[in-house]
Parts: sequence; structure tokens; C-alpha cells
Amino acid sequence: MTNTAIPPVRILGLDPGLRRTGWGVLAAEGSRLSWIAHGIIAPPEKAPFAERLRALFEAVSEVAEAHACHEAAIEEVFVNMNGASTLKLGHARAVVMLAPARAGLPVAEYSPNLVKKTVTGGGHADKAQVAFMIRRLMPQAGHVTADAADALAVAVAHAQLRRARALGSAA
Amino acid sequence: MTNTAIPPVRILGLDPGLRRTGWGVLAAEGSRLSWIAHGIIAPPEKAPFAERLRALFEAVSEVAEAHACHEAAIEEVFVNMNGASTLKLGHARAVVMLAPARAGLPVAEYSPNLVKKTVTGGGHADKAQVAFMIRRLMPQAGHVTADAADALAVAVAHAQLRRARALGSAA
Repeated sequence: MTNTAIPPVRILGLDPGLRRTGWGVLAAEGSRLSWIAHGIIAPPEKAPFAERLRALFEAVSEVAEAHACHEAAIEEVFVNMNGASTLKLGHARAVVMLAPARAGLPVAEYSPNLVKKTVTGGGHADKAQVAFMIRRLMPQAGHVTADAADALAVAVAHAQLRRARALGSAA
Repeated sequence: MTNTAIPPVRILGLDPGLRRTGWGVLAAEGSRLSWIAHGIIAPPEKAPFAERLRALFEAVSEVAEAHACHEAAIEEVFVNMNGASTLKLGHARAVVMLAPARAGLPVAEYSPNLVKKTVTGGGHADKAQVAFMIRRLMPQAGHVTADAADALAVAVAHAQLRRARALGSAA
């Protein structure tokens, strides 16, 4: 038995937003995580609403395909904003989830606290702590903006949690 | 000059919901509206969330293609629900709008009051009045459920408002 008993997998982490959606791709092989790529998608703000959603969907679809991702992960949403912001985030999150789903990728959802706890050890870590841990875990990533760090964080959490599940069911 | 100066167009009206999405298709030729089809889409409730969104997206895409629609219309959303409901409706509405947008159809958005006013003459008509008018305007439609009536209503409103705009710009 070695760490490579679980085949390598490319995970797409997503941090949705209508103005800015962060994404990050990593490869997980056993307990080893390697950074592949990350970025920000900013759909045109002045286009008709359906076109903004379409641009966001197409861009996420391209990222998933370009990096040959196998699985995707996204955070569940806290509803503690005003109604209009909740509605907008709902629209953005839907098309961001739909893109990998249409490409046949399973899309895992995790609570923000579980992501923070898995990545930093504490469920109430702030954004700066999450970004710090992402830079520690993946120094190759270079400069990582907050949105992209959040996207990489949910990918890291998914990698660790899926491995824990796989080891658990193998035991 | 005749009423047929504006070429016939097939309009897809949409009433989004995660559990039930109503749709209706009509043909508009000048001032004449003809019912083409209507129905309800009910994605599987027990599938993973991304799969439910995908099923909804695929079903709306199929309707738009099967009825060779040229344009789509959908209501804007009132945010007067709790946050969780707003978030769910946002997700459903996004994929419902994305389907025609990806097929190259323009997607018009109208406030619920404008739809009601255009269809019934009054901005505060209730659902029953809207359904009554839809049955009057399109007796060929036969039995129309409330969701489908709302979908046909936004299609009717779009047909009348686009015609008014076209006549206005031609004058």
C-alpha cells in the first residue's frame, strides 16, 4: 500500500460572484497536492443580464475543459446579505455550478466553516488566514488574490475530505 | 402598410422555480398571437443540487429548440421571501435564463406589474385574473396550470411590448 493507491485527480475549486468569480485548479495524488492554475473571471458588467450569466458560464466551462478537471467543489452560501445581493449571488452560483455539471463533473458542496477548518484547522479563520495557508500549501501559485485563494481553499478542502472518505471506506 | 410588416416571431415565456418551472410558447404576427405549446418542468428533487440545475437547464434548452423560439421573456423577481427561498429562486432563474441565452435568443426581463398590466389592464391583478385572460386570449391552449399561465403571460406581454416598441420606432 502506498499513498498513490488513490488515483490522481484534478479538482476545480470555485468561488462564485456575478462581478468576480475566483477559480483554482489543483492535482491531488494521495496526500500530495499540486497547484495547477488559478484565476478570476469578470463578466462584462454592462451586457444584458442573460449575457452576463452566459459569459460566466462559458468562462467556467472553458477553465474546466482547459485544465482537464475531474471534479469540482464550491462553498454553500450563508444567507446573511440583503435580498437583492442574495438573488444575484444565487444566479452567479447556479451558472458556476452548472458549467462543471454539464461537463459531467461531480460538484461537491461544503459549508464555509468546514472549508476553513479543513484548510486552516479553525472554523472561524478569516480570509487572510485562508490565503496564508493556501500560499504555504502551494508556493508555486505565486500571487494569489483573495477570490482565487478562496477558490483554491475549497479545492484543497475537497481533496482532503474526499481522501479521508476514500481511506475511511477502504479501512 | 399591413399588420404583417413585423415578421412573425416565436416567443418563449418562462416562470422559473427549482421545483416547477412553467413555460409557454406563442407565435406573434403583427397584433395576432397564437398559442403554440406550454408545459411544466419538474427536475428530480432528490438528485445532487448541481444535477437538478443541469436537468432544468437541459429541459428549457430542449423546449427552446423543439419549438424553434426566436426570443425569450422572463419576469424580474421581487425579493420579499426569506433568504433561503431567494437563493433557490436565484439559482433556478439563472439556469432558466441561461438556456435561451446560450441558444442565441435575446432574453427580455419585465417587472411582474408590467406583465400583469399588459395582459389584464391592471398592475395588481391576481394569479386567477392572469390565468383568465390567458385562457381568453388563447382558447386553443386548453387546460393551463397557474405556472404555465404565468409563463404564457410574460410571453404575451413581451409580444405586445416589443410590437409597441417596433411601431414606435417605425413611426
